[in-house]
Amino acid sequence: MDIMENLQTRAAELSDLHNVMALMQWDQEVMLPVRASEERAQQFATMSGIVHRKEVDSALGELISKAESSDEGLSVTDRALIRKMRRNYDQSTKLPEEFVVEFSTLTSQSLPVWVEARKNNDFASFAPILTRMVEMSRQQAEYLGYEKEPYDALLDLYEEGLTAAKVRESFDALREPLRNMIAEAGSGKEVAQGLKAPFTVDEQVRFADQLLAMIGFDFDRGRQDRSAHPFSTGLGGNDQRVTNRYNPQSIEFIFSALHEGGHALYEQNVSADLARTPLGSGVSLGIHESQSRLWENIIGRSAPFWQYCYPTLRKSFPAQFSNMDIGDFMKMINAVQPGLIRVEADELSYNLHVLIRFELETALLDGDLQVADLPGAWNERYRDYLGVTVPTDSDGVLQDIHWAHGSFGYFPTYTIGNLCSAQIWHAYCLFDLDHERTIAHGDFDKIRQWLSQQIYQHGSVYQPHELMLRVTGEELNPDYFLRYLKQKFLA
Amino acid sequence: MDIMENLQTRAAELSDLHNVMALMQWDQEVMLPVRASEERAQQFATMSGIVHRKEVDSALGELISKAESSDEGLSVTDRALIRKMRRNYDQSTKLPEEFVVEFSTLTSQSLPVWVEARKNNDFASFAPILTRMVEMSRQQAEYLGYEKEPYDALLDLYEEGLTAAKVRESFDALREPLRNMIAEAGSGKEVAQGLKAPFTVDEQVRFADQLLAMIGFDFDRGRQDRSAHPFSTGLGGNDQRVTNRYNPQSIEFIFSALHEGGHALYEQNVSADLARTPLGSGVSLGIHESQSRLWENIIGRSAPFWQYCYPTLRKSFPAQFSNMDIGDFMKMINAVQPGLIRVEADELSYNLHVLIRFELETALLDGDLQVADLPGAWNERYRDYLGVTVPTDSDGVLQDIHWAHGSFGYFPTYTIGNLCSAQIWHAYCLFDLDHERTIAHGDFDKIRQWLSQQIYQHGSVYQPHELMLRVTGEELNPDYFLRYLKQKFLA
Repeated sequence: MDIMENLQTRAAELSDLHNVMALMQWDQEVMLPVRASEERAQQFATMSGIVHRKEVDSALGELISKAESSDEGLSVTDRALIRKMRRNYDQSTKLPEEFVVEFSTLTSQSLPVWVEARKNNDFASFAPILTRMVEMSRQQAEYLGYEKEPYDALLDLYEEGLTAAKVRESFDALREPLRNMIAEAGSGKEVAQGLKAPFTVDEQVRFADQLLAMIGFDFDRGRQDRSAHPFSTGLGGNDQRVTNRYNPQSIEFIFSALHEGGHALYEQNVSADLARTPLGSGVSLGIHESQSRLWENIIGRSAPFWQYCYPTLRKSFPAQFSNMDIGDFMKMINAVQPGLIRVEADELSYNLHVLIRFELETALLDGDLQVADLPGAWNERYRDYLGVTVPTDSDGVLQDIHWAHGSFGYFPTYTIGNLCSAQIWHAYCLFDLDHERTIAHGDFDKIRQWLSQQIYQHGSVYQPHELMLRVTGEELNPDYFLRYLKQKFLA
Repeated sequence: MDIMENLQTRAAELSDLHNVMALMQWDQEVMLPVRASEERAQQFATMSGIVHRKEVDSALGELISKAESSDEGLSVTDRALIRKMRRNYDQSTKLPEEFVVEFSTLTSQSLPVWVEARKNNDFASFAPILTRMVEMSRQQAEYLGYEKEPYDALLDLYEEGLTAAKVRESFDALREPLRNMIAEAGSGKEVAQGLKAPFTVDEQVRFADQLLAMIGFDFDRGRQDRSAHPFSTGLGGNDQRVTNRYNPQSIEFIFSALHEGGHALYEQNVSADLARTPLGSGVSLGIHESQSRLWENIIGRSAPFWQYCYPTLRKSFPAQFSNMDIGDFMKMINAVQPGLIRVEADELSYNLHVLIRFELETALLDGDLQVADLPGAWNERYRDYLGVTVPTDSDGVLQDIHWAHGSFGYFPTYTIGNLCSAQIWHAYCLFDLDHERTIAHGDFDKIRQWLSQQIYQHGSVYQPHELMLRVTGEELNPDYFLRYLKQKFLA
């Protein structure tokens, strides 16, 4: 069919170019010489301009319209391709070019201001640019369009079909139970000690490689490197790259490896038939995060996992672990200790960090909260929900990059990911009643194969909520996550 | 001036895109997961197509014509930019697209056939595709145009303004003196022994980094990595990347580091004013090679260099060198021993390897030699010029990638590089009469600064022969190289 072929050719070209830009970004984080960042930014701007012009090309729009109106005899994948290309085209064309340039300029200006403000604990210096960022995000929502609330338009950028109402409903179900569970599980201070650092970087790298190989990361189709912050990115169907960082005082690298490894497993198992199309990678941030959190937390912090893995860890780090029994190790890696920093939070308190950000950013966008009052509102909620006193804005409202980056609507996807992970895991456990033994025997192939069949292989063919329905038989339901937490932390 | 600004904007965009493609190639050689090469090739084809369409855009041609006709009030750099863009435009447009596609397809087919043929010592399996490659190269020369011989058109691709006649003249001056000197310097077999391997890779890497830093490679604007074959590439004015390989049985990595380091020093010292223009990198293969060979051989294999550097080498590899005195070391690294393989050749015999290739490829293009007769002609010349018997075509006519790649006219630039290196070094020695002391004290800044001022900073503003005239007061003259060899090997 001629129209579909044309559409696929355009999709393939755009996919190639996006993968080239992914390479440029990966290289920037992992390899770039310090003084080359300015010229790399120019190269990136040149590429973005070329890609943008292709994405908003009216001939592409016409092609998509034609494909939409000739909806007969098309496969599920064809229809998904048309839908996805329509979505991308609309997202690209709804924002006037002038606005896109102004927003991207604001972002470039904002990031260094935020870095300085955080360094100097000086929220006031960041406030004006953040105010403008809120205004522009509101404007962005108007351009993109929404049914009920402006925030819906922003959410949809990251999680197709998600609405503020649904997020609010989930958080309403989580707020009190989480606060109560944290109070009940108590502080983990007394067990979080006893780690015999340091861990040499070489040994950490070797163990992280082993972990990735163990859960099924294919090193012939990917690699692991070092960067300032761990991340995972795809440069093509056969080129999935994860990074990690190695702090000699910490074993955080283990859970970062499993987290990024989870993202990578998803991408490495997307069907090759979807390569060079916009369907060829994971469907949304939330579903993606469900996989990183599944491997990091549900599997990676479970007793059966360490039953299998602790001997290897001890062999790799005998000086550090030969005197720690597995029970103490399990307590250490699952200690509940509400704190200031989201990315260091335990499984119980993590989503309260996200909830606070959701409440604040919706209030900012609605105009119910002024930027000047943001630090106060932040600190109040941390006291209220997590029982911690925020000593400085650097460790408070300035800790995350997202708002400085103009990414309003992004935070909820972290919690959506956690909720989905538990709901999906529940479905897996119905399939594999012996799931604890499966993990304790290191039969991760079995788990990965089920996940591939149910989720990974489909790439972006199904929308997030469709996928959840297919895999778990119901739409997003926070109960599974609460049940998982109760069983793990209060049993 | 509006026309010049337009031209510069186009040049900047093309420069950015070429740098992105350089990143893709670097990554391919250094980082790419084994199973990702096919998708990377597709991405590369997509990028090449986009760049090619921009390069042959008739609006660009018109802009260049306008700039050429308004040649008043232009700076030297402006005029060089126009000239260079004309040259690139003509090279891109003279070849019909059909021809370019066919040639590039032939090259992709040819490379694996050559790899197999070399592996199996089976020239006959490579002969048909090589025959076609010769035909297409002849056709290429016709499209590109030339004054005297078709070969001139191919040479000019790599070394602007160079002609077969000039190359022939140089080789005629070298042939007999080199053969005589090799006979006189005799075989180095007895001194080439005594190396106490192995050298661990980590130690080699550390020493190679030290060497690069010593000669002035700026690690804030570049990096060194590993690859199957050492190379040097630029991803932008502030991003020069060199690679090396580390054989535990050999110290070859030292000279590879200096060789690639020489290429990189050239690029790192091009004036920042030329960034994002086609003038912003080294002017030609020959001049580039003169710098790699200058640092590798003229400086890097000299007595004063090791007077400075041997203590560091000994400290880095005490077990290997504490019992070897510096005299034996110097004999070892300068042993004259005619052999089969170009890339392993000593300074005396190296250019005879190139000469043989030049004689054969011109004969092929002129139709004086048939591909079927190539191995015989190759072996005969190796016996005649170098006194060695070629046991297999794998170690003979199949050893180099160039012909399989369709790069006829490339080989002579290696010798041009050697000739230029000696001629330029002679000019340096007139400037710095104490040059041996300069090296022996490790004052490489002084040398690099002179080279930067004379050569590096100018990028491609001057044509190769103009540059030689400016720096040395005369055009290419092989006498300097012969004098250098005599003094070094027969004194």
